[in-house]
Amino acid sequence: MLTYDMNTRGKMPRYQFLYQCIRNDILQGVIRSDEKLPSKRALARHLHLSVVTVENAYHLLEIEGYIYAKERSGYFAERLQHRPAPPPPRPQYVKEPEEREFFADFSSNKVEHSLFPNSVLTKLFREVLSAQDQNMLKTVPYNGTAALRYAIANYLINYRGMQVDPGQVIIGCGTEYLYGRLLECFAHGGVLGLEDPGNHKFAKIAERIHLPVRYLPLDKDGVSIRALRDSDVSVLHLSPANIFPTGRLIPIKRRLEILNWLYENEDRYLIEDDFDCEFNTYGTSTQSIYSSDYQDRTIYLNSFSKSMLPSLRVAYMILPRTLLKRYRDEISFYSCTVSSLQQTVLAHFIERGHFERHLSHVNNVLKARKTALLREVRHAGLHHLGTIRIPLAGTAIFLENLTLPASAEIAKRNAEQLDVRLAFVADYMQCPTEEAKKTLILNYASVSQERFPEALRRVRTAITYPRLPMP
Amino acid sequence: MLTYDMNTRGKMPRYQFLYQCIRNDILQGVIRSDEKLPSKRALARHLHLSVVTVENAYHLLEIEGYIYAKERSGYFAERLQHRPAPPPPRPQYVKEPEEREFFADFSSNKVEHSLFPNSVLTKLFREVLSAQDQNMLKTVPYNGTAALRYAIANYLINYRGMQVDPGQVIIGCGTEYLYGRLLECFAHGGVLGLEDPGNHKFAKIAERIHLPVRYLPLDKDGVSIRALRDSDVSVLHLSPANIFPTGRLIPIKRRLEILNWLYENEDRYLIEDDFDCEFNTYGTSTQSIYSSDYQDRTIYLNSFSKSMLPSLRVAYMILPRTLLKRYRDEISFYSCTVSSLQQTVLAHFIERGHFERHLSHVNNVLKARKTALLREVRHAGLHHLGTIRIPLAGTAIFLENLTLPASAEIAKRNAEQLDVRLAFVADYMQCPTEEAKKTLILNYASVSQERFPEALRRVRTAITYPRLPMP
Repeated sequence: MLTYDMNTRGKMPRYQFLYQCIRNDILQGVIRSDEKLPSKRALARHLHLSVVTVENAYHLLEIEGYIYAKERSGYFAERLQHRPAPPPPRPQYVKEPEEREFFADFSSNKVEHSLFPNSVLTKLFREVLSAQDQNMLKTVPYNGTAALRYAIANYLINYRGMQVDPGQVIIGCGTEYLYGRLLECFAHGGVLGLEDPGNHKFAKIAERIHLPVRYLPLDKDGVSIRALRDSDVSVLHLSPANIFPTGRLIPIKRRLEILNWLYENEDRYLIEDDFDCEFNTYGTSTQSIYSSDYQDRTIYLNSFSKSMLPSLRVAYMILPRTLLKRYRDEISFYSCTVSSLQQTVLAHFIERGHFERHLSHVNNVLKARKTALLREVRHAGLHHLGTIRIPLAGTAIFLENLTLPASAEIAKRNAEQLDVRLAFVADYMQCPTEEAKKTLILNYASVSQERFPEALRRVRTAITYPRLPMP
Repeated sequence: MLTYDMNTRGKMPRYQFLYQCIRNDILQGVIRSDEKLPSKRALARHLHLSVVTVENAYHLLEIEGYIYAKERSGYFAERLQHRPAPPPPRPQYVKEPEEREFFADFSSNKVEHSLFPNSVLTKLFREVLSAQDQNMLKTVPYNGTAALRYAIANYLINYRGMQVDPGQVIIGCGTEYLYGRLLECFAHGGVLGLEDPGNHKFAKIAERIHLPVRYLPLDKDGVSIRALRDSDVSVLHLSPANIFPTGRLIPIKRRLEILNWLYENEDRYLIEDDFDCEFNTYGTSTQSIYSSDYQDRTIYLNSFSKSMLPSLRVAYMILPRTLLKRYRDEISFYSCTVSSLQQTVLAHFIERGHFERHLSHVNNVLKARKTALLREVRHAGLHHLGTIRIPLAGTAIFLENLTLPASAEIAKRNAEQLDVRLAFVADYMQCPTEEAKKTLILNYASVSQERFPEALRRVRTAITYPRLPMP
């Protein structure tokens, strides 16, 4: 008769423990193929269990095909390939490499999160949750909730002077995500053009769907028109208000040349990545290319990762009318990726003016910080080592034409030893130029002001020593 | 002298309005290339503005490249290609087709959201928000927050008897999303095998990254081993505890055959989609294939869309140790797609036992509903039209071998006219069989009990009339 020690079952229900014991015995051949199992009643008596417990265990074994019933003769073990039980693997924690936190990270474009109006957002979450709106429980439409799409459209109309209809807005869980979906629209025969330097993540995303990528060099006014015309690019990615990572902007002359290129072929599209447009020292009023494009061929892309918080995971894009149908037909089978709760809260945050107030506050802080940074750069004598360039857009200043005793790589390694992270423009290039290897980026978005004196002393050490001894 | 009516500027700041007026005049050639602009002082006097306002407008025009300064002679219009101003497009609402709500949707697998413990979740949100945890503001690791990964691992260990390490868990904004990322791991040389019938969305996702797809027919025990062996499939998708949409389960004999196939080649992997495992009438204790796979070649996939709410947008997968490094190397550059707030709340919800209580409540409701449905099916005489099959898994019953006066398509169209949505098994097949065209699915997850009598009367009409007259 089958004998199991029911006391070793821990918190497991009796029927499940019994089921497991018999299952393992069948799998290991302890109970042989076609062997008859004891009757429910007999086994219950033998193991001091209720008949219902054995019944439940047998039922489960039958459902899963370990045993079969023959009318009026009881249960039998299935004919299975027996196998020795493998030793149960020990649960062993798989260690993730931890994200290192630096004393000062001048490579990061993330705004320090202490500037985030957490209490306002908390209040809005509470309010939305209290309302117990049944709509919040419903499935979100593929393009996002109407409330958030209206809020974003209104924001862009009022603060960016853009003509946007809420039906053109697509909400997603981050720029990368939306970018991937958008590129799927161009996967058949399209060729993506990226600025070099630029954000290389986009190239990786394009490669996944086999969309060819061309890197286009920049001159001082942005993407080179000659290189663009010499290429087979059909979809051009631009960040015209803040060329990544140099902080330059594309002047109107070049923009008009780009629009001319765009209109020459109706398969051509622009992707306008306006990722940092909220942060600049000339106000929030520069015109988007989207607004100048009267043939409706520009996709406008932006996110709340920097303007709000990276941990929120909300971004949006504005599709031109010419692309809406294609997107709906080909891509809308993907469900929306942001929870309705989060979308509702964000819609309130924007509509009640909190977003604008927050941006204005952050811009004031960043402006003061920039002034402080420039002062400390001079105080640390960095201006003797290269030329300071202060772009109008974004949250970085640049040290150009640096005379480095060793390479940019060694300067960065030196800095890491001093708990500071640095980046050069060359780090964002597919084909790095000599000039870019000598251009240091000092992004002050995530470094708090009181750390500047010490941080810049360390930067100085890092870029003037040939190579620091290993600690 | 430039003359603009400043009263028409609405709420726009003066400098911005002036900037726009001049910008448009330059673009349209009203101000010609290289034409000199009035001095700031003169224009300010002429328009009754402060000099600072004109200064700001000129500054912006200069930054954007509409005008250039010559030392000691003032500002001049850039040489631009002039173009007639296009008529401003009228903002016109792009209408989205609305999701139709039916009196009864027997095709939907979504659990009615009135069953969701909204108040518990609200309380948890409040608690987490009140704690003002700074960690919540930080960037989420690519695989999700540690708290949620631990909670899910513990849940699977305790309730599914699975050996899971939190380091194996990957959090994402839905099954589709995770599926897409996962398939990228197999994009080089892999071939995806899907059950037919099955969830065809997965085929679409695979196509996007050019991963070939093969449809494998099923017999009564699940995927046909012969078809599997005759194919070049390397990655096999299964829902062994609840074959979609038939609700059958794969018995142990077939599972062992599948594992044998798996172990014959070390490039082979299984994707176990356990999408509905929480809902069945035999308890929550059936073994996952993941647990039987001692060679660590199974990816376990599940979501909270049905077990909690579709609008939450959280799913997870458990990667086998053999795949972890590849995933980390190739896919971890994508940011995590679920907000840290949501992950923290969900972690609490699971850890404090709310998830388990919720599932148990829903299962009780669904069990009662199933009984009621069967009663009403008989009451409506549907059992005379076909054979009732009641699977153990999932939330549907089936009417097999239906005698339809016309086609399944017409039965569905009839139903829609009566505000009821129906689906047949054939709707989920790449190669529909005659049998599948005669198998009606009655999924009761989203239809509330009090509607059963009326809903089933309409179903009867829909499937017995040749074709209802259009309304």
